[in-house]
Amino acid sequence: MPDNRPSADGARVLADLNALRAIGAYKTGVHKPTFSEPHKLSLDWLVRKLPGAGLAASIDGIGNVFGTSATPGLKLLAGSHLESQNYAGWLDGPLGIVYALEAARVLNADPTVKGAVEVAAWCDEEGHFGSFLGSRSYVGQVAEAEIDAARDRTSGRTMRDALAEMGLAGRPRVGVEPGRHVGYLEAHIEQGDTLESGKLAIGVVTSIVGIWQYRINFTGEQNHAGTTRMAVRKDAGLALAKFCVAIDQRFPDTCGPRTVWTTGRITLDPGAPSIIPGGAEMLFQIRDDDPAVIARLEQLLRTMADEASANGPCSVTVEKIRTGAPAMMNPGFQDAIEAASKALAGGRSIRMPSGAGHDAQMLATVMPAAMLFVPSIGGISHHWTENTADADIVTGAEVYVDACRRILAG
Amino acid sequence: MPDNRPSADGARVLADLNALRAIGAYKTGVHKPTFSEPHKLSLDWLVRKLPGAGLAASIDGIGNVFGTSATPGLKLLAGSHLESQNYAGWLDGPLGIVYALEAARVLNADPTVKGAVEVAAWCDEEGHFGSFLGSRSYVGQVAEAEIDAARDRTSGRTMRDALAEMGLAGRPRVGVEPGRHVGYLEAHIEQGDTLESGKLAIGVVTSIVGIWQYRINFTGEQNHAGTTRMAVRKDAGLALAKFCVAIDQRFPDTCGPRTVWTTGRITLDPGAPSIIPGGAEMLFQIRDDDPAVIARLEQLLRTMADEASANGPCSVTVEKIRTGAPAMMNPGFQDAIEAASKALAGGRSIRMPSGAGHDAQMLATVMPAAMLFVPSIGGISHHWTENTADADIVTGAEVYVDACRRILAG
Repeated sequence: MPDNRPSADGARVLADLNALRAIGAYKTGVHKPTFSEPHKLSLDWLVRKLPGAGLAASIDGIGNVFGTSATPGLKLLAGSHLESQNYAGWLDGPLGIVYALEAARVLNADPTVKGAVEVAAWCDEEGHFGSFLGSRSYVGQVAEAEIDAARDRTSGRTMRDALAEMGLAGRPRVGVEPGRHVGYLEAHIEQGDTLESGKLAIGVVTSIVGIWQYRINFTGEQNHAGTTRMAVRKDAGLALAKFCVAIDQRFPDTCGPRTVWTTGRITLDPGAPSIIPGGAEMLFQIRDDDPAVIARLEQLLRTMADEASANGPCSVTVEKIRTGAPAMMNPGFQDAIEAASKALAGGRSIRMPSGAGHDAQMLATVMPAAMLFVPSIGGISHHWTENTADADIVTGAEVYVDACRRILAG
Repeated sequence: MPDNRPSADGARVLADLNALRAIGAYKTGVHKPTFSEPHKLSLDWLVRKLPGAGLAASIDGIGNVFGTSATPGLKLLAGSHLESQNYAGWLDGPLGIVYALEAARVLNADPTVKGAVEVAAWCDEEGHFGSFLGSRSYVGQVAEAEIDAARDRTSGRTMRDALAEMGLAGRPRVGVEPGRHVGYLEAHIEQGDTLESGKLAIGVVTSIVGIWQYRINFTGEQNHAGTTRMAVRKDAGLALAKFCVAIDQRFPDTCGPRTVWTTGRITLDPGAPSIIPGGAEMLFQIRDDDPAVIARLEQLLRTMADEASANGPCSVTVEKIRTGAPAMMNPGFQDAIEAASKALAGGRSIRMPSGAGHDAQMLATVMPAAMLFVPSIGGISHHWTENTADADIVTGAEVYVDACRRILAG
């Protein structure tokens, strides 16, 4: 593409991101849970900005914000989310919103562009009330009963109460309009260190990995920590620790090159200093973009549990509590991002899967979808120290806007 | 001693224990937290029974019940506690109270006995509000400020509120009266399986082990469970699991024959399934009756922490949060229990340390003290299935009463 075409305004992008950071600021990050006051103010901020990008703003009954265009022709849907994890980073979500807004500002005002960029802010990507509620609602996978039952995982507030306090009770939810969009594009910080360690500017996402989650239970015998001889103990906590170490030793021989696994929570029962735990539980997660790898690892996990139970003194059970199929990103959109990166980022891009879940995996069930990553400093994510260099943010915006232009040009 | 001397009435002992079990019954055990309604009713039950043993009943300002005798001469103080752990066993505490009551009934009515048996029910041995508050108050180690600050560990109710609801607010606390008692004797279930596995009837306690407690902290790096490659993770939970397994492997070479150690609580920070824990903490306890053994093990623990920190990727710190000196039991009283066991239990006794803490360790700081154990079925303790065979309960009562007679006889 010729160099004189309108491109992203880096200063405007940084100013927008900092304006959103000032709403609900926490240290250098933000605390902006879904339907909190700072979240509401952030949605209001976007609603005020959308008309400047040639878009009509609306909020639907689940808190999704849409900027829609009256321009004829196919539209590209672009977006991300505005709420944050508790006490977390300033870019996780807002980066994708501001890039989408910037693309709409640049391209919707450009008479050479056919169609338009439309903007969406999906509500609750971070899962305070559920799992991808906003984008899942848009693709038609959320029933009213799920909203009836949803509660804030931190405060316990019901989603119905929260929607009423937001002034959204009873408002219709907006669903996908088949044939309206050429596809969906979402930008995000990488949340890992692949780009930084490779001195790269752009990640072209090939797939969003599936997440399989397990509850692993250990049953021993609760007893007195002073009077029970070591030789006769059935310590469920120790059995759990041995199992964690065995996973660490045995998974590397069976996993794929990018498989990750995590024990995120451990609970001992009863959890008192003078009582030998009679029960223990760990929440264990495996992520990969290849279901065959997961199947191998799950089989290994179950074999290890059977071996541990047979060897004693505690019994081990493995219960699968979440199965997530990977989402493949559209190859043509990947090519568009890579071409934009060659034009504007010196080709410093890499194709890579996303280890984290994103709204794009929901959109991918109803339309072509793609994602673009920018580097995360130190790979840090879901923490208030999360950050990206200003220069990388600006480069990402330029590549993103150009990729949108290429996708709309077909 | 001749066989025609009055002895324990086994049927009366079992009836008393079952009467106490009916107050606050939970399955085959009891739920009788300190200052709960069932605890109050149990104290009232004892107050009604004491006059039948020739004793005047009173409750002091910390909830200790005393049965005092007007008989001249040295008295033997005998007792235990009436509250239970939450949803726990029927004998842990009440056995020692009913044995003491039975000894007072038999011996205080016997004109050949010099002096008398006095009874004490120490409040909160189970530590709902603190650590041995009743017996520590009696030996002069509890300041008013400690009571001001004490709260129920389950409900959060303040001890001051609980004392007021019991009608005990402002009542004086009774302290040790030097020269009044020849010593203190406490009976208890073993809470382990040494007696049962050795087909023995009586444990003659030689010492009550000290408890050393540690908070071990692991610091890694909190990060996203999907986007952070395995190779660069600093998983504090995995570091903790490895440390637990290393303790299990290395402690046996350094410990004493009866040392026990327990990891009773594990906490991962933040403890979410999709976040690599950046921090982890374990509460770790070591018990032994030899401080030199503890010193060796503590040194090993600190060496292991230093090694783990040096090897990375997480750092480990060991903080000692409780130091408990062991309490030695009076040798003459041990001889009296052993002689009683020879006379009434066919000599099926063994000298053994107590791995659990008991009020006797507090009383041992101000007078000669001793303890007698009866078998625990399966060694089970602090659980509602805790139990002892009726025949063992009766034999224990007979030995206990005879031991009291021997101690009072000098």
